[in-house]
Amino acid sequence: MSNPSGTRIPGRNFLAVPGPTNIPDQVLRSMVVSMEDHRSSKFPELANGVLSDLKALYKTTTGQPFIFPSSGTGAWEAALTNTLSPGDKVVVARFGQFSHLWADMAHRLGFEVQIVDVEWGEGVPVERIEEILRADKQHTIKGILACHNETATGVTSDIGALRAAMDNARHPALLFVDGVSSIGCIDFRMDDWRVDLAVTGSQKGLMLPAGLGILCVSQKALKASETATSRRCYFDLADMIKANATGYFPYTPALPLLYGLRTALDLLFEEGLDNVFARHHYLAQGVRAAITEGWDLGVCAKAPKWHSDTVSAIVVPEKFNAAHVIDRAYRRYNLALGAGLSKVAGKVFRIGHLGDLNELMLMGAIAGAEMAMLDIGIDVRPGSGTGAAAQYWRTHERTQKKPAQRQEKRNETRAAAVA
Amino acid sequence: MSNPSGTRIPGRNFLAVPGPTNIPDQVLRSMVVSMEDHRSSKFPELANGVLSDLKALYKTTTGQPFIFPSSGTGAWEAALTNTLSPGDKVVVARFGQFSHLWADMAHRLGFEVQIVDVEWGEGVPVERIEEILRADKQHTIKGILACHNETATGVTSDIGALRAAMDNARHPALLFVDGVSSIGCIDFRMDDWRVDLAVTGSQKGLMLPAGLGILCVSQKALKASETATSRRCYFDLADMIKANATGYFPYTPALPLLYGLRTALDLLFEEGLDNVFARHHYLAQGVRAAITEGWDLGVCAKAPKWHSDTVSAIVVPEKFNAAHVIDRAYRRYNLALGAGLSKVAGKVFRIGHLGDLNELMLMGAIAGAEMAMLDIGIDVRPGSGTGAAAQYWRTHERTQKKPAQRQEKRNETRAAAVA
Amino acid sequence: MSNPSGTRIPGRNFLAVPGPTNIPDQVLRSMVVSMEDHRSSKFPELANGVLSDLKALYKTTTGQPFIFPSSGTGAWEAALTNTLSPGDKVVVARFGQFSHLWADMAHRLGFEVQIVDVEWGEGVPVERIEEILRADKQHTIKGILACHNETATGVTSDIGALRAAMDNARHPALLFVDGVSSIGCIDFRMDDWRVDLAVTGSQKGLMLPAGLGILCVSQKALKASETATSRRCYFDLADMIKANATGYFPYTPALPLLYGLRTALDLLFEEGLDNVFARHHYLAQGVRAAITEGWDLGVCAKAPKWHSDTVSAIVVPEKFNAAHVIDRAYRRYNLALGAGLSKVAGKVFRIGHLGDLNELMLMGAIAGAEMAMLDIGIDVRPGSGTGAAAQYWRTHERTQKKPAQRQEKRNETRAAAVA
Amino acid sequence: MSNPSGTRIPGRNFLAVPGPTNIPDQVLRSMVVSMEDHRSSKFPELANGVLSDLKALYKTTTGQPFIFPSSGTGAWEAALTNTLSPGDKVVVARFGQFSHLWADMAHRLGFEVQIVDVEWGEGVPVERIEEILRADKQHTIKGILACHNETATGVTSDIGALRAAMDNARHPALLFVDGVSSIGCIDFRMDDWRVDLAVTGSQKGLMLPAGLGILCVSQKALKASETATSRRCYFDLADMIKANATGYFPYTPALPLLYGLRTALDLLFEEGLDNVFARHHYLAQGVRAAITEGWDLGVCAKAPKWHSDTVSAIVVPEKFNAAHVIDRAYRRYNLALGAGLSKVAGKVFRIGHLGDLNELMLMGAIAGAEMAMLDIGIDVRPGSGTGAAAQYWRTHERTQKKPAQRQEKRNETRAAAVA
Repeated sequence: MSNPSGTRIPGRNFLAVPGPTNIPDQVLRSMVVSMEDHRSSKFPELANGVLSDLKALYKTTTGQPFIFPSSGTGAWEAALTNTLSPGDKVVVARFGQFSHLWADMAHRLGFEVQIVDVEWGEGVPVERIEEILRADKQHTIKGILACHNETATGVTSDIGALRAAMDNARHPALLFVDGVSSIGCIDFRMDDWRVDLAVTGSQKGLMLPAGLGILCVSQKALKASETATSRRCYFDLADMIKANATGYFPYTPALPLLYGLRTALDLLFEEGLDNVFARHHYLAQGVRAAITEGWDLGVCAKAPKWHSDTVSAIVVPEKFNAAHVIDRAYRRYNLALGAGLSKVAGKVFRIGHLGDLNELMLMGAIAGAEMAMLDIGIDVRPGSGTGAAAQYWRTHERTQKKPAQRQEKRNETRAAAVA
Repeated sequence: MSNPSGTRIPGRNFLAVPGPTNIPDQVLRSMVVSMEDHRSSKFPELANGVLSDLKALYKTTTGQPFIFPSSGTGAWEAALTNTLSPGDKVVVARFGQFSHLWADMAHRLGFEVQIVDVEWGEGVPVERIEEILRADKQHTIKGILACHNETATGVTSDIGALRAAMDNARHPALLFVDGVSSIGCIDFRMDDWRVDLAVTGSQKGLMLPAGLGILCVSQKALKASETATSRRCYFDLADMIKANATGYFPYTPALPLLYGLRTALDLLFEEGLDNVFARHHYLAQGVRAAITEGWDLGVCAKAPKWHSDTVSAIVVPEKFNAAHVIDRAYRRYNLALGAGLSKVAGKVFRIGHLGDLNELMLMGAIAGAEMAMLDIGIDVRPGSGTGAAAQYWRTHERTQKKPAQRQEKRNETRAAAVA
Repeated sequence: MSNPSGTRIPGRNFLAVPGPTNIPDQVLRSMVVSMEDHRSSKFPELANGVLSDLKALYKTTTGQPFIFPSSGTGAWEAALTNTLSPGDKVVVARFGQFSHLWADMAHRLGFEVQIVDVEWGEGVPVERIEEILRADKQHTIKGILACHNETATGVTSDIGALRAAMDNARHPALLFVDGVSSIGCIDFRMDDWRVDLAVTGSQKGLMLPAGLGILCVSQKALKASETATSRRCYFDLADMIKANATGYFPYTPALPLLYGLRTALDLLFEEGLDNVFARHHYLAQGVRAAITEGWDLGVCAKAPKWHSDTVSAIVVPEKFNAAHVIDRAYRRYNLALGAGLSKVAGKVFRIGHLGDLNELMLMGAIAGAEMAMLDIGIDVRPGSGTGAAAQYWRTHERTQKKPAQRQEKRNETRAAAVA
Repeated sequence: MSNPSGTRIPGRNFLAVPGPTNIPDQVLRSMVVSMEDHRSSKFPELANGVLSDLKALYKTTTGQPFIFPSSGTGAWEAALTNTLSPGDKVVVARFGQFSHLWADMAHRLGFEVQIVDVEWGEGVPVERIEEILRADKQHTIKGILACHNETATGVTSDIGALRAAMDNARHPALLFVDGVSSIGCIDFRMDDWRVDLAVTGSQKGLMLPAGLGILCVSQKALKASETATSRRCYFDLADMIKANATGYFPYTPALPLLYGLRTALDLLFEEGLDNVFARHHYLAQGVRAAITEGWDLGVCAKAPKWHSDTVSAIVVPEKFNAAHVIDRAYRRYNLALGAGLSKVAGKVFRIGHLGDLNELMLMGAIAGAEMAMLDIGIDVRPGSGTGAAAQYWRTHERTQKKPAQRQEKRNETRAAAVA
């Protein structure tokens, strides 16, 4: 890469933003394809394969996945406009930039949005949602929007608990979940949690460039889409359902990304989904050891139960500007860290630890962040971050104890999904 | 490639559908990129460069180009929802599957659509449009939708004449043009024709995979977007305008395609836009020679003035099914021809002659179509198509006589666009 | 590509030289690899796999294949220096530029070379070789060098008959065969013909870039290598044997090519070797139909029994210079034809029809050659070449009648090779 | 990658062997090329360009570079056989596996080899060589073979001092230098030091896959080649000189590597050769800080004057086997370290710090080596290596103080080379 002044900075860029993530060589390679006729008799093999295998990724057998040529933002929109009618009321817990943006989108698309504000650093307030739902005797609330993993603060919410709260309140609202920075990284159980609309994108856990907005839709939500009157065309599920049924798409698909998705799914299944989740937890724990034990700093997430296994927002000491850490890391060490957004701008920098990662890639990010902090005057001991991470990783396993069983389980899920 | 039964068919697939088109090696190569932070201080160099250079592609200095992670269909939607309010009336000339689909989209998005049906094989009926506009004293018509090149029938309309008709009628409606299969192939003059919304996609003249919906918007249309009340969020121009102003995008962009676009624009400018158009005409003439002189068949376009330089729809003799030609060509000769759609299904097959093509690539397509026709019993003389094309190409120039002057002119346009 | 004057010539180059050949997308993609440690515990999986599978390519179970980072010329040298001692006598049939060059190499490397000159257009004169061997009662002749397929003239020799001649003469000389432009294209039977040293390169039937010199060596030749005193080091088999035994190479291997070779062999076996040979014959017949029936021209090969299925040398009418055809084809039509070399310079141009090819790729080459001939004044009818080829291809099968059986046989060979 | 047991190890492999080195994305991408005719009128542009620019790499205006499709070992052989006659005497200083292998090659190729053994960890004993040369009144010694950078021990010799010694002895022997792991990394001055034969390969400082053996030859050595009688053909300079003069190669070149070389040279010149050397020194110093200050271990090089800026051989404590560190690093941390070879097998592991590297890539290697050492029981403090490297890198500059001037100088050299 070249830096802004035009001089080449040698060596590989360390990409430690929470998405887009590093593309494995196999995936990169699989996207080097000639164009082909997307109406050919051969095409459905590719389309059907990835659509079917996405079910295993979502851990669903009854949901239906959709792939849009769009970013994840497009899948957010598809989820809303396909199932809600103008003026419909939704409840959104807001505790970071992405939960804010989704709420804002719902508002702009003409829905009534009840925002439940929570301090940034916490996640979905399950009890408050339950109260709100219990109070809604008329069932005017049509949907609950929840960010599974708030990328801006590094906070993971408990979607299973949210589902339980909805069940407790016996409320029929649809459960919308933003899984952009969780699906493929953190355990996500579409069927177990009866999620109705689960959004993700290609550029995070799926280890691809951006360009695919992915949405998985429950039968309940599909039914709702039949009567929802919001105007939609590009993102209309009905067109997709009709075309996908024959193995095609209603308009020209982003071919290289579909081939890349094929390979990415193969890699995830080869590793084993539960091993992928275990690895993300293991790597995240090492990064957190660097932050808290090594550097003696805190993360934005208020308590361990909110700790995200895909991204950590590191709070810099008060008198420093986190943006300077990021700038120094980028210009001097070729390391891309995530910025603090909105309320936490300048207060935090973020290390994404999701996707195709291992210990040493993160060691580079930790070492680079450490040097950048030292360079702008933050008092951390050289080697403290990498040392703490090393101690964690050396003494813990990357994968689960009983991969065989889990592998089997995954295969069952997948077999069921394929069947 | 493998055919549907799994046996490998050796050699290169000949892609003669009217999009996606063949990707030049330089473009393919330029998309082999590692992911990077799309919020970095380096990113704007890429974004600003392609956004600025798209102006030269559109031959505009006052219009503003937008790039959406979507297919061209998404750019259709963006054009409509950003400038029209619910119930607004638009007039659409319909003479093929794509003009039909755009009209249908306008209807589904909540606009009042007045369809002007024209026989498939003709293009925009400029006089009828002028009459309609003259009759609309109240200016209730807010937009005219025109398909510059109807991909389904191989018909090119005269957008300059349409603009003149609108001017003659002194009507303020916005001029919406679908340039998906024309821009970058057939001369397109955003400024000269005062087009307000010009739509294209990455997978045709731009020689890229699908995945970018591109829209160029006039100042008049930008002004209209400030008051248009259609619900929109993903495709909202306002978000794009704000983010683009700083060199960024409002959500994660499809990075490899942006790098590919950078290279594709470089290649187009290197050849010279007017040379690109001349080449498309020259190649199209050779294909038409094969069809009419070689095979003694006709094209769907009713008259030479409708002949498209990017796609020809070949009408097979009445007792034959064009789908059988396509099927035979694909399975036996590894040649992808375009199918007849809707009204012309089974009656025509299409040869796309757009994008990064030369004589011999089309010779392969012509020879393959010829063999496939013979194989299903259509009586054409072996070698007649290739022979007729050869005679045309041998006796005509691929580029314009005075490339120097035109090159200069292009540079002026580009310089103005960049300035 | 750009032509020499710097202007971009649009579209794909048609590569019709007899090597390097077109790289299939799958192979191209498989070479996009990061570097890795060639001493790692993982590396032998790759090395052992390709070395073992090369046996199936050579149809040998007892021979040992070697892979050198070199061109095929290097493998020529390896064959000679590993098995011969200074002053050893070899007999070489010379009937084209490549048989000439190999003879010349043997001379320069210090061996006594008895050249048997044959008219260019014929192949190995089996009877004369037999006579020479019968006359050599003292067995002073240590090797017979034969070019299986003379790339310069498009002549294929009968190696089985040569072996029979050697047997008839009861002569113990080693049989050296240059299979550079035959192996992987034309049936080659290392074991059946008891070939002792069989040379090939990566850039022909193996559909890879140049860079691998491949040599398969019989047990008899391996034994000879133990006492042969020619100086050698880089190409010394002993070093290779030792390192290969453990799954490694004595020096840094050309990694991307090894991965490409892995994929290329997979593709060949997937198609079935005998289907690959049948396809080459079928495609060659079509090209010959274009030349003789379409254009009414002749090939350099004097009789059908010498016809090569991988390259045809087309003789232009006497008053024309074949170099002008080549030059015109390249500059105007982006078609690379092979030049006439040495004795046939200016008299012939060559079309290579080997590697990953199909009918339409060759249609492009035939059409381009036809136009170039017309352009320089050679009187051929437009469309005559493509028409004649079309008629051949339409009325013949690309693969053998009973692929199932043959597939089985191949698997047996391969299984034996692997075992 | 997959580990030997077949389970996928996620994330990027850290390649810290001293070659092959990491390929920059730009170089990787530039090798994704279709094959082309290496006899075309366009080809010389590529060939002439890289041959000419290699002169700037070698800092020579009078030497002539040659590119062989081979590994660096082939270029070793080319250097010897082109300039020496059978029985000629050469003197070789031996202090590591690669100086040993080159001496061994000279012996096997039929030359008389006088070995000057030096303790592993030291470099060329300039004074002893001078003595030997002074004693050789008859000038029977025809060549001095010197390994500029002994990759096995991490020792760099002073070639300028060796030249001075030869001058002092007024001895006309040719100076052969193995610059495989120095050229493009450590300052190498072909002209200033009057090196006669300078060998390198593509897979080290040139950041390419293996496959090109590169040799630069002085006019004096070229003259010697005219009378040297060693048998040679594949590596014969005369054939190359003749073909290169017209912009071609005598046999099919390894095309993708030539395109890669074009890009690699561009990158080196863009950074500035002297900046490249400065960066290598800066990075090496950081690694050595990790080893000596952080881990309190030693390197194989006996004194700072022998310290190599491209590779460090770390001596493990006596009771440990360095092979266990390497094995652990590879299997658990996806880190490829270099093994100890021959005399130092098990005693050292090596970190290559050459090619397209930056601080964080080496941080990964240091952290991984540290964890692997800890895992097998070597007592180093977690974070000590990365901490020490961090302190060095934070407090030193990566590039030279006055790049402008040096850039200018480089341009002069290059201009001279091109002229």
